Amino acid sequence: MIEQPKPSALSKQIEEMVEWLASYGKDNSGGVTRLLYDPAWSAAQKAIQARIELLGLSARYDDVGNLFGRLSGRDPEANVVLTGSHVDTVIGGGKYDGAYGIIAALIAVEYLLTHYGQPLKPIEVVSLCEEEGSRFPMTYWGSGNITGVKEREAVHHINDVNGIPFEQAMHEAGFGLGLHAQPTRKDLECFIELHIEQGQVLEREEKSIGIVSHIVGQRRYNITVYGQSNHAGTTPMHWRHDAMFTSAELIRILMHRANAHESGLVATVGRMEVKPNVGNVIAREVTFSLDVRHSDAKIIEQFCEACFSDFETVTSEHGTTVTCHKWMDEPPVAMDCTLNQTAEDILKREGISYKRMTSGAGHDSQIFGTHCPTGLLFVPSQGGISHSPAEFTHTEDLQRGVRLLIDLLYKLAY
Amino acid sequence: MIEQPKPSALSKQIEEMVEWLASYGKDNSGGVTRLLYDPAWSAAQKAIQARIELLGLSARYDDVGNLFGRLSGRDPEANVVLTGSHVDTVIGGGKYDGAYGIIAALIAVEYLLTHYGQPLKPIEVVSLCEEEGSRFPMTYWGSGNITGVKEREAVHHINDVNGIPFEQAMHEAGFGLGLHAQPTRKDLECFIELHIEQGQVLEREEKSIGIVSHIVGQRRYNITVYGQSNHAGTTPMHWRHDAMFTSAELIRILMHRANAHESGLVATVGRMEVKPNVGNVIAREVTFSLDVRHSDAKIIEQFCEACFSDFETVTSEHGTTVTCHKWMDEPPVAMDCTLNQTAEDILKREGISYKRMTSGAGHDSQIFGTHCPTGLLFVPSQGGISHSPAEFTHTEDLQRGVRLLIDLLYKLAY
Repeated sequence: MIEQPKPSALSKQIEEMVEWLASYGKDNSGGVTRLLYDPAWSAAQKAIQARIELLGLSARYDDVGNLFGRLSGRDPEANVVLTGSHVDTVIGGGKYDGAYGIIAALIAVEYLLTHYGQPLKPIEVVSLCEEEGSRFPMTYWGSGNITGVKEREAVHHINDVNGIPFEQAMHEAGFGLGLHAQPTRKDLECFIELHIEQGQVLEREEKSIGIVSHIVGQRRYNITVYGQSNHAGTTPMHWRHDAMFTSAELIRILMHRANAHESGLVATVGRMEVKPNVGNVIAREVTFSLDVRHSDAKIIEQFCEACFSDFETVTSEHGTTVTCHKWMDEPPVAMDCTLNQTAEDILKREGISYKRMTSGAGHDSQIFGTHCPTGLLFVPSQGGISHSPAEFTHTEDLQRGVRLLIDLLYKLAY
Repeated sequence: MIEQPKPSALSKQIEEMVEWLASYGKDNSGGVTRLLYDPAWSAAQKAIQARIELLGLSARYDDVGNLFGRLSGRDPEANVVLTGSHVDTVIGGGKYDGAYGIIAALIAVEYLLTHYGQPLKPIEVVSLCEEEGSRFPMTYWGSGNITGVKEREAVHHINDVNGIPFEQAMHEAGFGLGLHAQPTRKDLECFIELHIEQGQVLEREEKSIGIVSHIVGQRRYNITVYGQSNHAGTTPMHWRHDAMFTSAELIRILMHRANAHESGLVATVGRMEVKPNVGNVIAREVTFSLDVRHSDAKIIEQFCEACFSDFETVTSEHGTTVTCHKWMDEPPVAMDCTLNQTAEDILKREGISYKRMTSGAGHDSQIFGTHCPTGLLFVPSQGGISHSPAEFTHTEDLQRGVRLLIDLLYKLAY
């Protein structure tokens, strides 16, 4: 049990640092836009680097632009306790997504160093270069490189919306040129990420901390219904093969089955394209998205199979056809039980309310989770709003997360 | 009972004239594009004018560009028997829509003049300037001007997709300048329009001619469902207010009620726009079109009321809201019973199969129908295909229509 920082001082420091990091990439929407390798991104990394050096840690980049601040341990053989999150944002994002995990790590390490000196095991703060996929069609570029699941070839021939090639952008920011160490790490003891929930569960259930057991698996499909275009006025109802009507029935099947599921499965149809999309013409083709998530891959599989089997009944009645093209199938990733138990013990001892939960959103922790023991901890998001300038978490909640991180790092590294 | 033209000669003449008129506006799609007041449109009207003059009829335009070919009658007091259709096409249209009614009128009047000389009542062939609304947001500009339901003010401030004002286009084609007579006619005895069905009823039921009792009434709505945008991964199903799910339920209600209707009502949802239309975001707003048609306005009203009442049940369950914005409400228009009986008598006598039917599509006849006794007669459309280069009607069917028109005009004018 360690002595914790004074709440008032900690609150002040968190608020200042949230504004400090948000000042890099402040945009006209009132939000923050820091896209991989752009000037705001470079400025933010340089500012974090300066802050790391000010704390007396050694700062270094790897060759894709991940930034590390290292507090060496007394044991020269010990692996690294790594903590942090991603520095990039979506376009018009908020001040907390990613940023909070980096800020919390900086504050926690500063506090531990000041109060407890050198740890047994090295602790590193990481500002991961990219997670959001907002500039290039590429996500988890930072954690993916550290864990070795991404290869340099993956970014050949991909461009941003302005046609700038990924590699050109990387080179212009000073990376990918061999000036820094290769990113793959084999020396990680564990990874701890503090993040805003980006959902409403903690807020609605009035819990301060979420201990994530799994990051859910995700399947995504493009579902296309093929019917027959015809004149809206001259085609009797019973002769129609209406791709829109079929789609409405299929979406209803998905939603009713998902609503009836009591296991926390979620299914979403958020996108639809209709051809020809004219009010007085029966639709010949409708494509809609399907996003299904659950912490158990078998349940996702069973859900999809059951729905797709119902689809056949509808299309055969309607004289239409359907194809379900699966283009993403990410398995669920379990977070580390021991780390979670340690976090739970601390929260119980401190009398802080918490919830064991799954993460419905993806995070760098799901990449680290297959590479080393990983812990993902949530603080509440007001109204569940994220990826928006309106993203907000109360300082009190931010503070509880930082205090938990201080305790955890102490347990793990001292 | 009159002597009819020889089938082989008539077939040849029809086929030649279909290709002749289709040569004005032939486009790269293999179809025909003649948009109001464009060069192809002007060339077609000039070619029809030349043909009219070659027949010895007097040709004249009115001030909006409708072209008339007049065969004077012996009775100076008699009103005009008018026949024809529209010369404009959709973009990438076929050879028959509109064109067939003009060609049939020219052939019928030529035949009658050659074989029976001057009629008692004047007969006029009309090539109506516009029906489709393909260039400007304006439909029935030709028939609407003749019947006085359209006013010149209606085209102030409307432009085509290239930003060309309606009036500029009209002036450049030589109309709207007072060089021709004002279009409104008070001297019409009746109007007869021969047209392709643009549906599959005649083909499927193996009938040669459709005698149209009514042109259906049409209502069109924009229906907007308002829900709440949220993260597809972090929002449990029971907290969602999903505008897409609600829309699927509403479309299903519309389709099930329309399918259960046994009166020939048709309802179509052909267009949908989703906001934000992203696969991993729950839709906050969905707008879809509704097109409802029937020959009885009361039935349309009852159908909409019943559906909209069901809508309330769904939206209150889903915690969403819906607005139904009616932007078109055209009443059904009855065709003339006496004209239809005359046509039926002729067909019975000739042993030609026919069907009394409604027209689910709009035609110039619905504008004339509120102004003077009007008859609309259909020939089959292969596969029901229209507004497409693939539009096709067998010459045999085209010929039966022309022969019916010859007989009808003789009955009405001689």
